[in-house]
Amino acid sequence: MDELLSYRGRHAGSSAIRDLLRLTEQPDVLSLAGGLPAADAFPVERLRQATERVLGAGGLYGPRALQYGPTEGVDELRELVGRNLGVPAATTIITTGSQQALDLIAKVLVDRDDPVVVEVPAYIGALQAIGGQFPNFIPVRSDAEGLDTDHLGELLRNGLKPKLVYTVTNFQNPTGATMSLARRAELGALAEQYRFVVVDDDPYGALRFRGEPLPPIRQFTSMAVSLGTTSKVLAPGLRVGWMAVPEWLVGPVVRAKQGADLHTSTFAQFVALDALNDGPFLAAHLVALAEVYRARCQALLRALDGLVELHEPDGGMFLWGRIPGVNSADLLKQAVECGVAFVPGSAFCIDGSGSDSVRLSYATLNESALAEAAARLHRAVHFISA
Amino acid sequence: MDELLSYRGRHAGSSAIRDLLRLTEQPDVLSLAGGLPAADAFPVERLRQATERVLGAGGLYGPRALQYGPTEGVDELRELVGRNLGVPAATTIITTGSQQALDLIAKVLVDRDDPVVVEVPAYIGALQAIGGQFPNFIPVRSDAEGLDTDHLGELLRNGLKPKLVYTVTNFQNPTGATMSLARRAELGALAEQYRFVVVDDDPYGALRFRGEPLPPIRQFTSMAVSLGTTSKVLAPGLRVGWMAVPEWLVGPVVRAKQGADLHTSTFAQFVALDALNDGPFLAAHLVALAEVYRARCQALLRALDGLVELHEPDGGMFLWGRIPGVNSADLLKQAVECGVAFVPGSAFCIDGSGSDSVRLSYATLNESALAEAAARLHRAVHFISA
Repeated sequence: MDELLSYRGRHAGSSAIRDLLRLTEQPDVLSLAGGLPAADAFPVERLRQATERVLGAGGLYGPRALQYGPTEGVDELRELVGRNLGVPAATTIITTGSQQALDLIAKVLVDRDDPVVVEVPAYIGALQAIGGQFPNFIPVRSDAEGLDTDHLGELLRNGLKPKLVYTVTNFQNPTGATMSLARRAELGALAEQYRFVVVDDDPYGALRFRGEPLPPIRQFTSMAVSLGTTSKVLAPGLRVGWMAVPEWLVGPVVRAKQGADLHTSTFAQFVALDALNDGPFLAAHLVALAEVYRARCQALLRALDGLVELHEPDGGMFLWGRIPGVNSADLLKQAVECGVAFVPGSAFCIDGSGSDSVRLSYATLNESALAEAAARLHRAVHFISA
Repeated sequence: MDELLSYRGRHAGSSAIRDLLRLTEQPDVLSLAGGLPAADAFPVERLRQATERVLGAGGLYGPRALQYGPTEGVDELRELVGRNLGVPAATTIITTGSQQALDLIAKVLVDRDDPVVVEVPAYIGALQAIGGQFPNFIPVRSDAEGLDTDHLGELLRNGLKPKLVYTVTNFQNPTGATMSLARRAELGALAEQYRFVVVDDDPYGALRFRGEPLPPIRQFTSMAVSLGTTSKVLAPGLRVGWMAVPEWLVGPVVRAKQGADLHTSTFAQFVALDALNDGPFLAAHLVALAEVYRARCQALLRALDGLVELHEPDGGMFLWGRIPGVNSADLLKQAVECGVAFVPGSAFCIDGSGSDSVRLSYATLNESALAEAAARLHRAVHFISA
């Protein structure tokens, strides 16, 4: 029946990482591979209260919380997002997680073979969502200061005309790098000059445990699309994210979303709204959350004890680094034998690089489990280096 | 900036019905236009209990209810859906409403200009979701017994090779028609012979208030994709639907969904699961729900008093019929003046027909409001016929 499949149905890649992660889902394996936020830090009780307020006697929003809603999202949540981002609510759209925002922006901007710039290494979910349009992915280098705008500038001066440039600006997945202020300004200036859309994906910004927040790309250009989500702040199971887009993109994105799922769960939107609107709760929760991730990051760094060459992140969920002289795909097989898993770097690199790199997530396991996972990783490296 | 838009970004139509419904959203207008289920019949208290059981002390599913989950949907809900449909759980996929199922199936089967068969009249949301792939829509007639399989057979014998045939088999939107047993069997036989996918969209099947259920298309062919949803049974705000697909479609659909939104809200899935798993609640709720719609249907029919030529539906939310000698788009303007709204038939008809037809929804308003709405419609018809 394969002859009935569309081009996409035939060619859309299985996610390599997904197949790989399945291998690591064995009961005795401690996983540094997943990108699951700390479940023990979910604000379960506050979300329970929120659902009670939404559905309980005299429910806060009446039947709206269970009825069909506007494709753009419920007004109250759009207003809150607009206020937080400093943009008009009318240019915000509530999405079914950030992943949907990527799918929608790709649908309305990218035709097959259109040039799309992505960092090396890049977030795999973005490669998959944008990849559904079969663009011509253009790799741009990145380092501890994020996407290398010098490299991008060189490509643009040589004639590259990208439809969009995709980047995770804070505590990037997989590298943990945060784009420097100078590069943010430069990326904005390039977008203004060469007229491409910059997708500034920021799921982790609130998880900063060191240093000061930096301004988002939209402060430097009118060509920015800003993505945000409740996934790392409240809970990914809600699937409530948002995007703020230039005015000319509102109509196309909303029409694409209407076809995609009519609208994001109104129930989940109102539950998220109730929690996000509770300033004292949110402030305390974010402080506690950052502390959880700071402590876990430190615990893993301590236990790795120099095994991996890396830059320490200022927040987020990931460590990225090299284990010189080791092929990380080979190492993974040995690591699973030793009872620990991670993601080999090549999975994130569209240019074939990353074979000596690893992504280690410190988000999911507690501190003692992280120490044990690192000890097992030491053993695995010792085995294959022996 | 329009030159940055993709083909889809430039061409995806604004939904005519959406713009039109906005006109009818005036406070004094009684709307027979929307497809909103009866909010006063939402099982609010049972859903509140479900959220309490999911999130309360010792939460039924632990952190899974708030964590990232499998793209295919949570196992327990897939098993329930598989059991209810009589198919293996492994061939079911939980979707963000049925609308997403349409988007996904179109993505993996349909390339631009591929032939796709739709009924005349057809569900507008399907035209929009599938339309995102820019297929060549082939209209096939329908009547009180649903999609006209004689017409379809004729087209197939003349060389039509559709990728898929889309139909709503029970209490169709907009016509209220239910496909006869003979035509279900014939459609299945045609799919077997000519090897196209039949999408059997069944959001309303549980809202039967007359007659006996008929077997779904999948009982007659291995080429059927069955769509279902909690939207009309529990609440549309959950955005929890499902699809059962032939085995060869599981992989492509799951990969497309992964790029689209990673997975449907685990929170909403577990809340829906808890309610759907409660047999005594569900049985009583469905009886009560069918009675609400039966009574509303009867109330509207009584008050219309022959104004519209129609076949009475056996369930669902819609009446469809002709008002001979009247252009229903013109009538709508007059109707809004008189304080009532409906959807003109042409909005559902890709072949340009339907200009003397109307879709009237009896789902949203209570019985006395339906009587008043019908009285206003009488006045509007009187005005423009005078």
